[in-house]
Amino acid sequence: MTTFTALDVQDVRFPTSRDLSGSDAMNPDPDYSAAYLTLRTDAPDAGTALVFTIGRGNDVQSAAIQALAPHLLGRDVEAVLADLGGLYRELVHDSQLRWLGPEKGVMTMAIGAVVNALWDLRARREGRPLWLTLAMLSPEELLDLVDLRYLEDVLPREEALEILRRGEEGKEERIAALRESGVPAYTTTPGWLGYSDEKLARLLREAREDGFEMVKLKVGADPADDERRLRIAREVMGPDYPIAVDANQRWGTAEAIGAIRALAPHDPYWIEEPTSPDDVLAHAAIREAVSPVRIATGEQGASRILFKQLLQAGAIDVLQADATRVAGLNENLAILLLAAKFDVPVCPHAGGVGLCEMVQHLAFVDAVAVAGEDPRRRIEFVDHLHEHFEVPVRIERGRYMPPEAPGGGARMHETSVAEHLFPHGPVWQEIAAADGPGPSDERAEDDGRDAAVPVPVPAAD
Amino acid sequence: MTTFTALDVQDVRFPTSRDLSGSDAMNPDPDYSAAYLTLRTDAPDAGTALVFTIGRGNDVQSAAIQALAPHLLGRDVEAVLADLGGLYRELVHDSQLRWLGPEKGVMTMAIGAVVNALWDLRARREGRPLWLTLAMLSPEELLDLVDLRYLEDVLPREEALEILRRGEEGKEERIAALRESGVPAYTTTPGWLGYSDEKLARLLREAREDGFEMVKLKVGADPADDERRLRIAREVMGPDYPIAVDANQRWGTAEAIGAIRALAPHDPYWIEEPTSPDDVLAHAAIREAVSPVRIATGEQGASRILFKQLLQAGAIDVLQADATRVAGLNENLAILLLAAKFDVPVCPHAGGVGLCEMVQHLAFVDAVAVAGEDPRRRIEFVDHLHEHFEVPVRIERGRYMPPEAPGGGARMHETSVAEHLFPHGPVWQEIAAADGPGPSDERAEDDGRDAAVPVPVPAAD
Repeated sequence: MTTFTALDVQDVRFPTSRDLSGSDAMNPDPDYSAAYLTLRTDAPDAGTALVFTIGRGNDVQSAAIQALAPHLLGRDVEAVLADLGGLYRELVHDSQLRWLGPEKGVMTMAIGAVVNALWDLRARREGRPLWLTLAMLSPEELLDLVDLRYLEDVLPREEALEILRRGEEGKEERIAALRESGVPAYTTTPGWLGYSDEKLARLLREAREDGFEMVKLKVGADPADDERRLRIAREVMGPDYPIAVDANQRWGTAEAIGAIRALAPHDPYWIEEPTSPDDVLAHAAIREAVSPVRIATGEQGASRILFKQLLQAGAIDVLQADATRVAGLNENLAILLLAAKFDVPVCPHAGGVGLCEMVQHLAFVDAVAVAGEDPRRRIEFVDHLHEHFEVPVRIERGRYMPPEAPGGGARMHETSVAEHLFPHGPVWQEIAAADGPGPSDERAEDDGRDAAVPVPVPAAD
Repeated sequence: MTTFTALDVQDVRFPTSRDLSGSDAMNPDPDYSAAYLTLRTDAPDAGTALVFTIGRGNDVQSAAIQALAPHLLGRDVEAVLADLGGLYRELVHDSQLRWLGPEKGVMTMAIGAVVNALWDLRARREGRPLWLTLAMLSPEELLDLVDLRYLEDVLPREEALEILRRGEEGKEERIAALRESGVPAYTTTPGWLGYSDEKLARLLREAREDGFEMVKLKVGADPADDERRLRIAREVMGPDYPIAVDANQRWGTAEAIGAIRALAPHDPYWIEEPTSPDDVLAHAAIREAVSPVRIATGEQGASRILFKQLLQAGAIDVLQADATRVAGLNENLAILLLAAKFDVPVCPHAGGVGLCEMVQHLAFVDAVAVAGEDPRRRIEFVDHLHEHFEVPVRIERGRYMPPEAPGGGARMHETSVAEHLFPHGPVWQEIAAADGPGPSDERAEDDGRDAAVPVPVPAAD
């Protein structure tokens, strides 16, 4: 019998606010970071996962993951891996830890890291990529992973099982198709705030030449700029090319409706995060007011209970699942099921640190075993920090191609982790030596967050 | 100039699961705990606040508070205290920390602790109890404390100001009335799950003899027990005495509707937490189905954005604000304003560690400066752990009487803190010596959480 021996959590931060300060209308100075978990066993193998953060607080997130150690240390690895539904429910329903949410925020993301690390380990022991490990499960096994508490008013158990049984039909063909042609990506590369109009136009053309069949622009800082940039993008890409825009929660309800109406003549493919991710009723009101413009949200959706309501209220056209925001893969399976029930496409959020590598598995399992084929499915792509991962995403002709290497995608090179440890890794020591205390652990009065024009950068999404 | 010199955070836990194991339908084994903040200055004074938790994870909550130190260390105390609206917004809008919520969970509760400690310090420097410090502010000063982002679709600035201006009229008279006769309390003492029917009846009579004009029973474990206990309580107390019941989030929507209909013939005064606190639409559906039975929730309401929606959707009859769940007093002021706008009474949640001492200030400021006189206003009371506080609540004839001692109520005796430090304080060392590792830091396989009948105890509320 092998047992779990340690939850090693490392505070890994990339100093992206240094060279890339400013990013979107809400997150001007992210230091892309990962609370990076290695779940060790007394066998030579380990499971890996991470929680993506944007700097300050990555230590708090790390402490929260560490606090879950008593749930695993000393336990039989194979028994735990054989019942990941049970382990997930045990963590989510630990009543003392639940008090810290419930089912949201730092503690839930910590549970997500542990659950995802267990899935990584299970897939590795099976010698499969995570998406295929999941695709091999029966509808009953998949359903057993899910917690339907608080969902059954909308998704009774029988209906969830029915969705998964439909997902069983033609699964082999869909796996073959996935391996053949992947899932379309869209790119946010051309669309950062602050690029010159010329650069915007050039990058848009390049994105199309690279095979991307959709792009996204950041908006939300200045309405006139937003309108002009979307107009230029539309002129460059022509009338039928999908161009989404992302407001990063910048607006209140009335402001959102006004802003979206101003952009609507240029046919945005969707409007992402028009307002607070928690505001179901605001999303519903905005969507109704701007119909037929599509509304998307989800990268900061705290739980399956929120997503249930967004769907139930008819508040969204696109659900943007995230790999590290909810309580891991198990909760994301519930979210996939809810989306399938309402026939809303899941277009996962990516970017950051390792999100592309992790979130692709969600889209793949959705494609092969839950919602099935859906031409509306796309995965966000940001070409940044992939070199730090053992199995970086593979984008071909604008499509995510499924990995065949075992695991869930979050494992980084040891040297990358060591170099970016905060605050004592060499990268941060160098910064400290060059200019005193770094910006991530001390809030300087002049940290540039009030700068009028955010600098163009790859952002948190 | 005095400056902030330290955020000392102590992990204080009371081993309540030892002598009081089991509590309610969702929280069977709480160790009532506090992430206890002392905000020190280079003057002799300090501000105090706490976040209430129920055991495991109190260390994570403490780390989150500590992570906010860079926002305060070295800053001018008087300048910060003079602009607590500004400081609150600075913390809430720290984009890197915001990522960890946004605006919910551990990081938001940490911000709440810092904000509340600042208010405690400000009230102490003024020599006033917190409720009076607030009552002395003008409508414009109160409004400046509030962040209306994401609220203005429901509560435009002008309307918020109007509510506060109405709250200005007759304020002196209401302050005098408050000092004279306080705010009614209700007690949960008779109603814990598992008491014998005889004990229930006796404690109900005692509660009335002690002057309490309302009681609350726990439900949610077994429907037949729930019905019988409420029937007995109704028989003992007669047809007009308010008897609320509390399900502690136990039910799904359909289950809640069925359970409430079964209890309705015994005229429960309100049904508290029928389901997930995040589920606005479920609360609305339940309320509509069981009308005219009142629905209450809020002790685990994560943010003003959630409360806005609960009110907007007509989902609740009673709003149960909590002192340590949201981003401190400032966010609670927004919640009081929202409730006043919808004419929904605020009946704060209390119990736990220090919640009674803190939350009374919310009810008092609501009574004198926001919603004004409201016979529906009541504050929860649990007679437990008050002896550890420097200024324990004063209950007279079933009413909370306002303190005149300076501060916000959270300050504990130094000896109480020292004795209950986890895991190295004498109380926990003694437990460790007596029976090995304590239950709070290690999840034992047989920790009793599956015991069929929870033992009667004062619970988390």
